[in-house]
Amino acid sequence: MAKTSTSIAALSSKGAWVGPLVYLAMLAVGVAAFLLIRSVGETLQPPAEVANEVAQAERAIPKVDVVFHVLATLAAIVTMGIFFGRALRYFGQPPVIGEVLAGIVLGPSLLGLLSPELASFFVPNAQQDPAGVVVSALTAVSRLGIVLYMFLVGLELNLPELRHKAHAAVAISHASILAPFVLGAALALWIYPRVSSADVAFTSFALFMGAAMAITAFPVLARILTDQKLDKTELGVLALSCAAADDVTAWCLLAFVIGMAQSQLSEALFVITGAVTYVAVMLLVVRPLLHKLLARFENQEFPSWMFPAVLVAIIISGLITKTIGIHTLFGGFVMGVVLSSNDRLNVVLRAKLHDLATILLLPAFFAITGLRTQITLLNTAEDWLLTGLIIVVATLGKFGGTLAAARLTGLSWRDSSALGILMNTRGLMELIALNIGLEIGVVSPRLFAMMVIMALVTTLATAPLLHWLWGPDHRKVRAAVSHT
Amino acid sequence: MAKTSTSIAALSSKGAWVGPLVYLAMLAVGVAAFLLIRSVGETLQPPAEVANEVAQAERAIPKVDVVFHVLATLAAIVTMGIFFGRALRYFGQPPVIGEVLAGIVLGPSLLGLLSPELASFFVPNAQQDPAGVVVSALTAVSRLGIVLYMFLVGLELNLPELRHKAHAAVAISHASILAPFVLGAALALWIYPRVSSADVAFTSFALFMGAAMAITAFPVLARILTDQKLDKTELGVLALSCAAADDVTAWCLLAFVIGMAQSQLSEALFVITGAVTYVAVMLLVVRPLLHKLLARFENQEFPSWMFPAVLVAIIISGLITKTIGIHTLFGGFVMGVVLSSNDRLNVVLRAKLHDLATILLLPAFFAITGLRTQITLLNTAEDWLLTGLIIVVATLGKFGGTLAAARLTGLSWRDSSALGILMNTRGLMELIALNIGLEIGVVSPRLFAMMVIMALVTTLATAPLLHWLWGPDHRKVRAAVSHT
Repeated sequence: MAKTSTSIAALSSKGAWVGPLVYLAMLAVGVAAFLLIRSVGETLQPPAEVANEVAQAERAIPKVDVVFHVLATLAAIVTMGIFFGRALRYFGQPPVIGEVLAGIVLGPSLLGLLSPELASFFVPNAQQDPAGVVVSALTAVSRLGIVLYMFLVGLELNLPELRHKAHAAVAISHASILAPFVLGAALALWIYPRVSSADVAFTSFALFMGAAMAITAFPVLARILTDQKLDKTELGVLALSCAAADDVTAWCLLAFVIGMAQSQLSEALFVITGAVTYVAVMLLVVRPLLHKLLARFENQEFPSWMFPAVLVAIIISGLITKTIGIHTLFGGFVMGVVLSSNDRLNVVLRAKLHDLATILLLPAFFAITGLRTQITLLNTAEDWLLTGLIIVVATLGKFGGTLAAARLTGLSWRDSSALGILMNTRGLMELIALNIGLEIGVVSPRLFAMMVIMALVTTLATAPLLHWLWGPDHRKVRAAVSHT
Repeated sequence: MAKTSTSIAALSSKGAWVGPLVYLAMLAVGVAAFLLIRSVGETLQPPAEVANEVAQAERAIPKVDVVFHVLATLAAIVTMGIFFGRALRYFGQPPVIGEVLAGIVLGPSLLGLLSPELASFFVPNAQQDPAGVVVSALTAVSRLGIVLYMFLVGLELNLPELRHKAHAAVAISHASILAPFVLGAALALWIYPRVSSADVAFTSFALFMGAAMAITAFPVLARILTDQKLDKTELGVLALSCAAADDVTAWCLLAFVIGMAQSQLSEALFVITGAVTYVAVMLLVVRPLLHKLLARFENQEFPSWMFPAVLVAIIISGLITKTIGIHTLFGGFVMGVVLSSNDRLNVVLRAKLHDLATILLLPAFFAITGLRTQITLLNTAEDWLLTGLIIVVATLGKFGGTLAAARLTGLSWRDSSALGILMNTRGLMELIALNIGLEIGVVSPRLFAMMVIMALVTTLATAPLLHWLWGPDHRKVRAAVSHT
């Protein structure tokens, strides 16, 4: 090393005058050489073109610049999400509302109405992109985000803790699911002849409406209670257990609906059996095995293959649930539950996955949701009446059901109401469920628009209602809604 | 809270016998209610279907399940990447080789040849997916990964340090660029009439061949030197500065080629002027302003909008360079340079971006590269002779040029050789450049296959050559190549 140092020192002192000369000479030689090569080369004839399938296929694609549109859409959603989110924070509203609004603004409900040209700068219209390549690419990105997000949701379910501490919670939880479920199904009697279509059976429709009404935003609640340091109190554990049980139950219902809606009864039974078997194998066989494996790394760093292996496991789990006949996101969720309750792994995975998944990949989901939300379809008074009815029934079922069950278990009116308000928050989870409903065809675009409005309204209502209930404790309210 | 606790305690004791009864009754009522609703609902008629553009467009798409294929491909590449990577580590090879091989295995060169059915399980063939929706979606994901990766590469360029410490390095660096550049351009004289096509001008072709030969793997070198704790020594700083200068120069050349190849001379001048102006504004105006802004957060946590804002900035920078006429990835790189040399931000951004971008999004890039690499196109002895020639010329130019320049500045033979071997490592950067060449049509699929083999061989050669040079110091060699 000593020799090297001297050499470089020598170079530096020589370099003062030799450097520039040598350098310029070198450049000149290089340029001259290139020009010489060029003058010879320009007389050359290229060969006759060779037929090439891939190149031809690729040349057939670039009618529309997929990458440009996808990146532009993501940038627009994230940017608007930041600004809307900050503006909404003044009103104590959670950031997710900002991104949903950003998606709706970019979609046919606003930008598509005001300036179709600008809207097609982000997502090209059906003439410019007949195969829907841009929407497909956005869907792929958004699905990646959703699967990772559901994995993180599953990761937060602390299974053994819930199992030991809160048997009573299951009863409250199921009451707070049953009420909105039955009310939602009853509402289907009114809605089905008005907004559904002939290829959807009433049973699937009613089941979906029930499940969609019953969904609550578990990750929100978990975050709220942790932030409030309520998660170790008895009220906190009760609320958390209720929400977790709600979540699992509602998603099971939804999986059931997906199985039903996409197949005949016999196939549906196959789907349900497959799903139950898969979850059982994952929780009863894979989970203990993996935790035994993880225990090996208790006192050392996780190996470098751990994170890629977890990503692969999440994706494969999603592909399996998809193959069984339910949605990819259940696979992500199940994998999250399987890996949950290892705190150290949980922290590592959250740190690596959470921000990029929620900030970069989920915006594609909001873009897709906004694109699908056509508020212009609600063009009669009856449509808006129906929308109002949906909001009332959703709130009555969830808030009312929770309140009643919580009172019955002996909670105070105030605590019961707070629990009801929190459980009535639909957030991102409801939007995920609604998109599934639209994809499998159970929900029509018109009903989709109504239900998205319901999800927005119930989420927006949380902060003002908590304000009203808790009075001037702004900090508490803000913290309670900031993670919706 | 005391009241709540008593209530719950009361509940728990009551729950022992009341709970199950109430719960079962509740379930029974729920199920009965649903069955009643169902029996009424099944007599209802849905409305006549409403025409709906979005729903129709979406129903037109799902011929091919884009999400399934994209997720399956990502899972396959990541899984094979882990196994190949671990196997190759025994031979002291860097993990990137494993993922490139995984991509080639999945593509037409191996799986497509052995079992076209299995290959189309991952990426459907032209009959199943005529619009190339799956390839488009994979491209969008891979581009997202590449832009983020190039941002991280830019972030590692410590601009002020390089500027102050290493004027001499620029001369060595440019020598180690000029030699392969001129040799590559000269090789074009031989290759152009054999593998190019009529729509590519010789000048663009020769410039691209030169630039492609001149590319080196800067991020690799940076990591190697840091791992070896050589990055603060004079040899280390020299090598790092050379590689950084190489990188910037080679990418500038490539940007120039892209501008040339895609347009007439007058437009090319416009592209170059635009690119230079953009880089100048970003480095001379935006960079100081942003660092002034960042200085505000010196003693506090970065605000929550910081990370989303950085992501948006990266994407918008990519969209701007794309609009100017060069590639999106330059935008990512420039944004990285703009934000570099704030160590704390650098650490935060790397932690949030690196793993997910490189482990989940980049595999899409390897899949695309593998799909495009059709080794079956090399079916004559002449093709393989050409491939060999390309490898020899690439190595002669890069290794020879670096060795000569390093010797001239007074480094020992041993150090000069080591520097030459390291600079001859092409790694991921070369593959990125080659994909650009294929996309803009300068490189034919046959030449692409040859150049990919060259990139693989020069990268594979690094470890054995360093072994031979450094002798038994395995640890050093392994560390030196483990980040290629």
